[in-house]
Amino acid sequence: MDKNLLIMSQMPKHFIDLADRHFNTHKLWMKDDEDKFIDKIKSNVDAIAVMGGYKITPELMKNMPNLKIIACYGVGYDAIDINCAKSLGIKVTNTPEVLNDEVADTAIALMLCVYKKLVTADNFARTNSWIHGDFPLTKKFTGTKLGVVGMGRIGKAIAERAEAFKCQVYYHSRNQKDVKYVYYNNLIDLAKEVDTLCIITPGGKETEKLINNEVLDALGKEGVLINVARGSVIDQETLIYYLENKLILAAGLDVYTNEPNIPKKLMSLDNTVLLPHIASGTVETRNAMGQLVFDNIKNYFEEKPLISAVA
Amino acid sequence: MDKNLLIMSQMPKHFIDLADRHFNTHKLWMKDDEDKFIDKIKSNVDAIAVMGGYKITPELMKNMPNLKIIACYGVGYDAIDINCAKSLGIKVTNTPEVLNDEVADTAIALMLCVYKKLVTADNFARTNSWIHGDFPLTKKFTGTKLGVVGMGRIGKAIAERAEAFKCQVYYHSRNQKDVKYVYYNNLIDLAKEVDTLCIITPGGKETEKLINNEVLDALGKEGVLINVARGSVIDQETLIYYLENKLILAAGLDVYTNEPNIPKKLMSLDNTVLLPHIASGTVETRNAMGQLVFDNIKNYFEEKPLISAVA
Repeated sequence: MDKNLLIMSQMPKHFIDLADRHFNTHKLWMKDDEDKFIDKIKSNVDAIAVMGGYKITPELMKNMPNLKIIACYGVGYDAIDINCAKSLGIKVTNTPEVLNDEVADTAIALMLCVYKKLVTADNFARTNSWIHGDFPLTKKFTGTKLGVVGMGRIGKAIAERAEAFKCQVYYHSRNQKDVKYVYYNNLIDLAKEVDTLCIITPGGKETEKLINNEVLDALGKEGVLINVARGSVIDQETLIYYLENKLILAAGLDVYTNEPNIPKKLMSLDNTVLLPHIASGTVETRNAMGQLVFDNIKNYFEEKPLISAVA
Repeated sequence: MDKNLLIMSQMPKHFIDLADRHFNTHKLWMKDDEDKFIDKIKSNVDAIAVMGGYKITPELMKNMPNLKIIACYGVGYDAIDINCAKSLGIKVTNTPEVLNDEVADTAIALMLCVYKKLVTADNFARTNSWIHGDFPLTKKFTGTKLGVVGMGRIGKAIAERAEAFKCQVYYHSRNQKDVKYVYYNNLIDLAKEVDTLCIITPGGKETEKLINNEVLDALGKEGVLINVARGSVIDQETLIYYLENKLILAAGLDVYTNEPNIPKKLMSLDNTVLLPHIASGTVETRNAMGQLVFDNIKNYFEEKPLISAVA
């Protein structure tokens, strides 16, 4: 196919190989002067492939008269100005479903790591501290109350796993869903009810700093916060304050406000488990995501239905 | 009650408090000369409370003519000479059931930590390595094949959790159990079949070095080994060789041959997650175990049925 595909940043090899075989690819991250390169090819770009979180501005879209589709690698497309895309008739796709299990695995893993202090325990074992005495007792996870903020596809996958750990599952989302879990219209009330609050809501303006001091107060001193959504959903400075002063028990975080930068204060706290945004980061899942990015673009130009359009 | 209870080593406060209120307690670990102390009180000892793994020899039992019951804190009573106890009419109890969930949580947590390299990932995030590039992709856990060695109460609790991660569950034990999982009479065949081999069989002579080079060969280069049973079940030197030479993929271990000593070689390997025998180590579960140790001893002297006798 002679369609011009602009790839904004480094993406997994499996996808790049597929794209190279089927499209005329332009790899922005390999260019010395990215602005100059975009200027050169802007009128030829038919499609964009982009990692979730990479900003696609109205200016960029308006500069590309032939742009038909932006295929986002990831389920969160909050960095793409979706209203602008709609107004320009540009299709936008994401990669739902194929990462549900992986992100849910990461969420549960974070809960277990936080409750059982597993990172600290590995360090304790590995530094031979055990010969001086036993590792302190931790907190039981099975049977705790879990509050899921955002009961979408991934939220459901998290809830299903939590049920195997005999957790009672509660949730908050804009609308009540057709699930058996207990719905809380009010996030503060949910935070008061549960032991663990797990954030898996979409990012973007609507959920910005949704997790603020009021929610953390409601979660309380024995409460655990897990975030596998977007850093923007949490007021990060406030969270650090609550962790430093033990106003909540602990946090397990995969995402941050200004990635890949993690505040030094957060790094120094022993009541955190910190992951470098790897919720979907396995070979199997990333390949499936890459395949879906590719299939959406290919379908568009073959005039077949898009598999996962969001605009 | 004026019964004399000998407590062999430091045990959690919850139990000690209970014991102090109801028995005439003798705390061996607080004595300067333990042998001398035992010599002094041996003819008065009515009951022993002991941490699982602490050796109770025939000599000790034979030295205590009034000893009626040994209450083991833990599910594994392999360090107690059970045949000798039986021959002397000494009752032995353990603490089953109350720790099933906790040990199963730890087993699943180890699997997730190994597959997703979570300890390494936390270290990566915490040392700011992320600013130099993304964390390498790992391996998907959901949907893998899990082989459980020892389908007892805890094995079942592990299998139930693994099902929520869409794992196909297989197992090996001396006899086929009334469970829906696929039974392998032959451990080597099981190891060949599965991605993860999780050991939760009793310790003791019968299972000593059950996991040897043949089993590890069968598990193979992509195989993951998890041990939440006893260190004795694995040929530890051989396991280290297989990990060093990448003849299996990785191991998640909670137990070791000569605790609290962990071989330095094991500590230096990055394809291990090492925990300091904390499988049941939460406040909630340890309190429940302590309560059961206490209730068994109390029931004995009140001539009520023992709750969990093993001899």
